Amino acid sequence: MPKYSIGVDFGTLSGRALLVNVETGEELATAVYEYPHAVMDENLPSGKKLAHDWALQHPQDYLDVFANTIPAVLKEAGVNSEDVIGVGIDFTACTVLPVKEDGTPLCFLEQYKDEPHAYVKLWKHHAAQDKANQLNDIAEKTNQKWLARYGGKISSEWLFPKVWQILDEAPEIYDQAAYIVEAADWVVWQLTGKQTRNSCTAGYKAIWHKKEGYPDKEFFKALDPRLENVVEDKLNCPISPLGSKAGEISEEAAKLTGLKVGTAVAVANVDAHVTVPAVKIDGPGKMLAIMGTSTCHMLLGEEEHNVPGMCGVVEDGIYPGFFGYEAGQSCVGDHFAWFVDNCVTTEYHEAAKAEGLNIHEYLTKKAEQLKPGESGLVALDWWNGNRSVLVDVDLTGVMLGMTLQTKPEEIYRALIEATAYGTRKIIETFRNNGVAVNEFYASGGISQKNPMAMQIYADIINLPIKIGGSSQGPALGSAIFGAVAAGSDKGGYDDVFEAARVMGKLKDTVYTPIPENVEVYNKLYEEYSTLHDYFGRGANDVMKRLKEIKKLQSQQ
Amino acid sequence: MPKYSIGVDFGTLSGRALLVNVETGEELATAVYEYPHAVMDENLPSGKKLAHDWALQHPQDYLDVFANTIPAVLKEAGVNSEDVIGVGIDFTACTVLPVKEDGTPLCFLEQYKDEPHAYVKLWKHHAAQDKANQLNDIAEKTNQKWLARYGGKISSEWLFPKVWQILDEAPEIYDQAAYIVEAADWVVWQLTGKQTRNSCTAGYKAIWHKKEGYPDKEFFKALDPRLENVVEDKLNCPISPLGSKAGEISEEAAKLTGLKVGTAVAVANVDAHVTVPAVKIDGPGKMLAIMGTSTCHMLLGEEEHNVPGMCGVVEDGIYPGFFGYEAGQSCVGDHFAWFVDNCVTTEYHEAAKAEGLNIHEYLTKKAEQLKPGESGLVALDWWNGNRSVLVDVDLTGVMLGMTLQTKPEEIYRALIEATAYGTRKIIETFRNNGVAVNEFYASGGISQKNPMAMQIYADIINLPIKIGGSSQGPALGSAIFGAVAAGSDKGGYDDVFEAARVMGKLKDTVYTPIPENVEVYNKLYEEYSTLHDYFGRGANDVMKRLKEIKKLQSQQ
Repeated sequence: MPKYSIGVDFGTLSGRALLVNVETGEELATAVYEYPHAVMDENLPSGKKLAHDWALQHPQDYLDVFANTIPAVLKEAGVNSEDVIGVGIDFTACTVLPVKEDGTPLCFLEQYKDEPHAYVKLWKHHAAQDKANQLNDIAEKTNQKWLARYGGKISSEWLFPKVWQILDEAPEIYDQAAYIVEAADWVVWQLTGKQTRNSCTAGYKAIWHKKEGYPDKEFFKALDPRLENVVEDKLNCPISPLGSKAGEISEEAAKLTGLKVGTAVAVANVDAHVTVPAVKIDGPGKMLAIMGTSTCHMLLGEEEHNVPGMCGVVEDGIYPGFFGYEAGQSCVGDHFAWFVDNCVTTEYHEAAKAEGLNIHEYLTKKAEQLKPGESGLVALDWWNGNRSVLVDVDLTGVMLGMTLQTKPEEIYRALIEATAYGTRKIIETFRNNGVAVNEFYASGGISQKNPMAMQIYADIINLPIKIGGSSQGPALGSAIFGAVAAGSDKGGYDDVFEAARVMGKLKDTVYTPIPENVEVYNKLYEEYSTLHDYFGRGANDVMKRLKEIKKLQSQQ
Repeated sequence: MPKYSIGVDFGTLSGRALLVNVETGEELATAVYEYPHAVMDENLPSGKKLAHDWALQHPQDYLDVFANTIPAVLKEAGVNSEDVIGVGIDFTACTVLPVKEDGTPLCFLEQYKDEPHAYVKLWKHHAAQDKANQLNDIAEKTNQKWLARYGGKISSEWLFPKVWQILDEAPEIYDQAAYIVEAADWVVWQLTGKQTRNSCTAGYKAIWHKKEGYPDKEFFKALDPRLENVVEDKLNCPISPLGSKAGEISEEAAKLTGLKVGTAVAVANVDAHVTVPAVKIDGPGKMLAIMGTSTCHMLLGEEEHNVPGMCGVVEDGIYPGFFGYEAGQSCVGDHFAWFVDNCVTTEYHEAAKAEGLNIHEYLTKKAEQLKPGESGLVALDWWNGNRSVLVDVDLTGVMLGMTLQTKPEEIYRALIEATAYGTRKIIETFRNNGVAVNEFYASGGISQKNPMAMQIYADIINLPIKIGGSSQGPALGSAIFGAVAAGSDKGGYDDVFEAARVMGKLKDTVYTPIPENVEVYNKLYEEYSTLHDYFGRGANDVMKRLKEIKKLQSQQ
């Protein structure tokens, strides 16, 4: 009798379950549940207004994902819950909520229904920027050595700025919270009945280190005396490496999901990181780029190196036993969307419609007729700042080389090329700092939908690009971790490496560098690099000065 | 009885006559005649194909302008030809044709009807670029001191590259031509019956200098031994300063135009230069910008200085007795048109339509709500290279500072600002080289139609801007020179200064710098200057390298 695993991927607007055959990796059924509360960035369910830059979610929606999607995939695939050996989940991060000792979210309590801080702070809640700035200042002044592990900067999206904001703005909520917990870990808790935290979010989002733990009390005290004991008071739970078992489906969870009591549940994971096994990556030197509105880069290494400008390095952060490196580009699909939304003329929209293409397809059709360098354009892909390797949100976009003959498809292609140069810059920075990158894998929307972009990437980074074979990369990855949590005794796997090789998937298509394109792009990359360093490393801080002026003028 | 003067302005596609009251400057009647042959850039009237980059005209069209427009304005205004005391003309330049001893264009001869070189080479005939390159090379190698008067480079649009192309490609036409003459001087010759050349086109387009004459024989011999005597052989005619009388209407011209035999005819002029008196400029230090698809800058000085990057300095080149300085920006209106044609989204076009505005008006309406610097953008206005002050056609455009929030109206405004920074750069270069610029006047389409652009210019150059009061600046200027050719005895004027003060016109509107905008723009101009020098003066020749790559890739 074949065995199955279920992966549940919690995204920004919906959750998705995927039922996978453990022995073949075949994807048998999938179901999606849109969060009824979606992202709350204007008001609470009660109507209470939220301030600028807030982004909340409702934890009931996550439970409803389990209740709706797991029974649905079992039914669709005609699979008996007896044959489901494991469940894995992945989540957006850092997405956190304050809960009681028993895991009840404070927002479920009548008295806090109207209190924004009682709800889930979604990853893109940006209202703790002030706290992040203060935290970075103090960390720098007090020479916190962990700062280097995060490319020199803690993001406002991460755990401690969000926790500090709760303390500062809603001390009662802070006091009443027995824990402040990642939603990833909270949903696993709801499945198993006991709290287990995962090394991935702890490491990447909560400044935790396998050997050194969290930052010390002195540091938290320097932030705010009331934060001195934040770790014992709010995060007091052991941390398990990825690839281990968090627990088993509880009776309550069995009722919720239709799964059998005792089914293995994997330690929680993050959407980007969990995709690594889904593309068959089984060891170091193989970079995965998850390419969507922005791009995440995942890479395993055997040693811990501080690479400038990465998002983090975490032991057991992607696979157990390896150092997981994360890097990022803050603007990829968003970049092309901006261009299409703002800068493509009516004539093109009409021509696209006449040919039955969407505007991206139409521009791509025109852009793919261009040879590398034929447009004469080069761009810096900083429309949303630069995450890796400069870690500077105040950098802005540049387009150079326009003439009166420049066409929209040329600008479109130049924007794609710019993001590929950015990826090459990341690869070279890893290599120059002792972390090998020998192979390249891509997953996510752009990798599936835009062969021209992928060929450009292959030509620019001069590596063949393998493409993830599942359109549900994160859910497949979660199912893989579910099979590993079950172990070989139950028909699963004893390690994620083997599971990845069997259950992971790649498309047959491989984008292979074309030597004559590589040659031209090597020259263009040099130009990109010169501009990158000129504008990005202090030779001409024009972008920052323009932002200062902009800020002043916008306030008047 | 009031006296009148007629100005005839020969443009690229049509000629226009304007009848003006000499004592008041009042414009009584105007008539336009479109050239039936327009610009011949694909084939001759016979159907014969023209090569790439050719642009010819038919001289019969010019005669037909006289025949059609002068009688029309006399009739419309109800003015008797007895009361018309003078005629002036202005023309595009350098626009040249080969003619027989008696002035008959060679293309009028049956045997040369099918010979492209027998026709008029229009200013934008660019097929002599090779010749211009060779000429510049040789001039530089042989240290021709006149090169500095032209900002270091002779354009392919000017006289000698065009003449050399005739010699090289059609030696018979070269041999048969008794003269190769500016169309400006040729139409005056058709009015007066005798050839007279003007100091303006000779100086700006034919490397002539009042004291030093043309380049010497040795130079022409170095270009091509057959060119050694080109001046005596093809240009053998004295040169008269602007503001002087070329002659009087001949009997033949009287039949053609309906004017009286003996009416004074002014020495020919160029469209940009002739506009100076039309805006009342009566002396040095007052810069006129004629703002259209590109911008020409006109300035009088009392001494001859070599200012880097100007288009030329010519004694008597604008007004008699002064050194006329010309500078230019190669991409102004073209710049905004490129943006609108290529980069404005459907949503904006539809919104504009709904409000009954054209897209420029709509963008302007949105852009004028922005404060200086509020967009965070700065651009280099080099979409069509840079004429003044860098004289480099291989420079290309830059836009910097884009974010995902950047809107089309912000880019549009940044493009306008970039051209204004370019103008400030020209002004400062004149000032830094001993030529005063104390006042600023604007004429041409943009000055009339775009108050936002004019306010931005005033704020950026920090000078009040006076706007030309006639929408027919060149024709009015020509009429002023017509009145000066007639002289005070006939009811006209003895000098152009007095005529300009009386007949020239300014609008009441003056754009006055707004101190708080000036302050912000001073900072932004510093950023522009840094980028201008970084990309334009050799620190990073990325634009040239990209153009090289583009050229190679386009040829494959």
